[in-house]
Amino acid sequence: MKRYERFADQLATLMNSGVLAPGERLPSVRNASQTHGISPSTVFQAYYLLESRGLIEARERSGYFVREPARARDAAPLLTPLEGTEVAVSDLVYSVLQSLQDPDIVPFGSAFPSPDLFPLARLARSMAHGLRDLPAQDLTAYVTPGHPELRRQIARRYGLAGMPEVGEELVITHGALEALNLGLQSLTRPGDLVAVESPAFYASLQVLERLQLKAVEIPVDPERGLNLDALEEALSRLPIKACWFMSGLQNPTGVSLDDRAQQRLYGLLQRHQVPLLEDDVYAELYSGSEPHRPVKRFDRDGLVLHCGSFSKCLAPGYRIGWIAAGRQAGAVARLRLMTTITPSMPAQAALADYLQHGGYDRHLRRLRLSLDRQRQAMLTAARRYFPADTHVSWPQGGYFLWFELPERVDSLALYRQALAEGISLAPGPIFSAQQGFRNCIRLNCGHPWDARSEAAMARLGELLKAL
Amino acid sequence: MKRYERFADQLATLMNSGVLAPGERLPSVRNASQTHGISPSTVFQAYYLLESRGLIEARERSGYFVREPARARDAAPLLTPLEGTEVAVSDLVYSVLQSLQDPDIVPFGSAFPSPDLFPLARLARSMAHGLRDLPAQDLTAYVTPGHPELRRQIARRYGLAGMPEVGEELVITHGALEALNLGLQSLTRPGDLVAVESPAFYASLQVLERLQLKAVEIPVDPERGLNLDALEEALSRLPIKACWFMSGLQNPTGVSLDDRAQQRLYGLLQRHQVPLLEDDVYAELYSGSEPHRPVKRFDRDGLVLHCGSFSKCLAPGYRIGWIAAGRQAGAVARLRLMTTITPSMPAQAALADYLQHGGYDRHLRRLRLSLDRQRQAMLTAARRYFPADTHVSWPQGGYFLWFELPERVDSLALYRQALAEGISLAPGPIFSAQQGFRNCIRLNCGHPWDARSEAAMARLGELLKAL
Repeated sequence: MKRYERFADQLATLMNSGVLAPGERLPSVRNASQTHGISPSTVFQAYYLLESRGLIEARERSGYFVREPARARDAAPLLTPLEGTEVAVSDLVYSVLQSLQDPDIVPFGSAFPSPDLFPLARLARSMAHGLRDLPAQDLTAYVTPGHPELRRQIARRYGLAGMPEVGEELVITHGALEALNLGLQSLTRPGDLVAVESPAFYASLQVLERLQLKAVEIPVDPERGLNLDALEEALSRLPIKACWFMSGLQNPTGVSLDDRAQQRLYGLLQRHQVPLLEDDVYAELYSGSEPHRPVKRFDRDGLVLHCGSFSKCLAPGYRIGWIAAGRQAGAVARLRLMTTITPSMPAQAALADYLQHGGYDRHLRRLRLSLDRQRQAMLTAARRYFPADTHVSWPQGGYFLWFELPERVDSLALYRQALAEGISLAPGPIFSAQQGFRNCIRLNCGHPWDARSEAAMARLGELLKAL
Repeated sequence: MKRYERFADQLATLMNSGVLAPGERLPSVRNASQTHGISPSTVFQAYYLLESRGLIEARERSGYFVREPARARDAAPLLTPLEGTEVAVSDLVYSVLQSLQDPDIVPFGSAFPSPDLFPLARLARSMAHGLRDLPAQDLTAYVTPGHPELRRQIARRYGLAGMPEVGEELVITHGALEALNLGLQSLTRPGDLVAVESPAFYASLQVLERLQLKAVEIPVDPERGLNLDALEEALSRLPIKACWFMSGLQNPTGVSLDDRAQQRLYGLLQRHQVPLLEDDVYAELYSGSEPHRPVKRFDRDGLVLHCGSFSKCLAPGYRIGWIAAGRQAGAVARLRLMTTITPSMPAQAALADYLQHGGYDRHLRRLRLSLDRQRQAMLTAARRYFPADTHVSWPQGGYFLWFELPERVDSLALYRQALAEGISLAPGPIFSAQQGFRNCIRLNCGHPWDARSEAAMARLGELLKAL
């Protein structure tokens, strides 16, 4: 693919996702050439290609404009939130993720902390030991719930955290996202309703989209968490088949449910016999004085499918997660066998060794301290540079801050302008099936704070004030 | 779970899958106790539990019998094959795979060659090098089609085999099964018809089941391969959305399509504009004088989604496969991002290093020779011990032999009897949505031949003659 075709495709993706809206003017050839570091003729070729595809149109003396799509937006069915919303956020998410490919971009929009915070060299040693100790026949032993020692180590950590015994129901998965996919699939059929948070982790909306499920969005207050009154009403009125919630360090707000709220939540689930898919991937990043424990700890009858992962706290890219799947353990194991068979054995062996000998708890203490420092630095910068009427969450851990900007701010416009200046961010609409939260953004403070971070916050502040 | 509960569950699985049929007598307590090495009281407790669940019944002085299921089998809708068959083979497959967990079982039913045939120590060295050279930020760089050097090496092998350039359309996946899942999902919606082989790789039937697709079974002749007349008729009469075929060393028959047949197949696909998901995981195990090349080589317009893997020829358990996805490359990459995000980075890095420095072609030559020897040994044993009216395939590589046994043989009964004597095999009905091929079995000759293999073939021969 030629450079101009790639650039045209990037623009087409932005149009698809609504980041470049119909009627909007494209940057001038000269501007685009400077912003993207490509020659004016490359820009011109790209615009010409997009025009030939009917995506943009030239208007005399005023440049290129995004055309109205052939299928009018109004034709789409409008469902009220409580009847379930069909989910179609993927285009927008994809364009945000693509923007992070470039290492020169300030990664405030990233979903990950800096890889420099992880003990990668120590993990490589564990990989060598793990592979040495792995019996050859285990490489083709497929109908298992996972590497036995890894399962033992994970079950042990549940026990040490005062949780009920999960040994039997534990299935190792290819990251938490596979765990959540398989868990949800084991509980639903296409067309079913699933209660999700609003705002929610965007991948949960993508999974619903893929499985042709409908989202019932339950509001999350950035300070108090999930609105349990709204959930209670939804569970009474609608045939909800499953809930997908995060009780700790919710993504994107960072809020955690307190004990009382968790107990009430579990009571609701029990009364309606609706299973909970509990996404708990930030569990180890909670830095309150006591560890935050998930709803799963109340679960005596297998109603909670509790999902965890090493991707955010130890070993990104290894793709090892798990699910304590309660009643669904057998169904999840079989679904996994039909789709990915087993997680990568070397990665499982490496993590089993690391959990035994690597000093995981020491690493976690250091990691939490780094994230605390960085979160503090970002909060300080936001106070300094952002408009006074900005609200920001104060999460007790993790590496996300959720900003409610002044009502007038359109976060998609901000996203576009910031990106043109080399700063990525996650705009509010990607966290909602209905593309709400237009004046919100999620910023990642998982990277060591430096002059570039400070300058990027200052620049965001200027853009905000100009909007 | 207690021992007797586990044993009861094993039996329930066998009943579910039809291996233990309604009306059939269970082994006596004494027999079961000896066969499974558990105490008679454990057997008795298990039978008692199954009785309390209504699955079996005691008849005076004659023992325990499997009860008729509440939902009569006759109530299921009977579709003719050409209108598409709903797929439900998972129970049976699962019970076959479970039987292979025990290392004392002769693994004739296995889907894998012996792990001893793979260069595991050399791969571990490549893992160390690969991890050392992997840039930390690549661990969280998610929106990519895979490890760049690994993609380059795979594309290079296509080129060396005289195939068209696939660089741009190549997506690395978590094994070939994920590639096939995502490829098929990108092409279909629930309810669509998909043409599959009959007999077919059982996982393809499971994938159809999971995606709620309907199978149109196209017969495969163990000597000539896919029946292209039947395919032509099906494509003209039915709105088939995709085909899923293996052109080389088809699983389970081992047959490969010759050049002329491949050309005719591609012509049919083009005429009807129906995409082909080409499952080519045994490509490197073909031991004819010329390499066998896939249908993909004719593809100039992105109609063929060609799937490969390292699991059968180099690195089982690493879970690295790929898809040259033609027109669907973008859709497949995005579906992957919603389900498993990225294959395990350490495994990708290890294979990238191995392909550069590990001596892959030398390993493959040795592997093919070993498999040739073992296949020959199994064929010789079959001639010696099996009934004279047995037909067996003569594949040009790989590690499967497909036996058509005398008509009177029920391979499920044989499977059950052989398993009780410590020999696993893959019964014909798991390779068919309609559970046909009752008198066929697939045997795995991928393990170094020894006295135990010889004795197992002799015993299978005796069981066959007694049936």
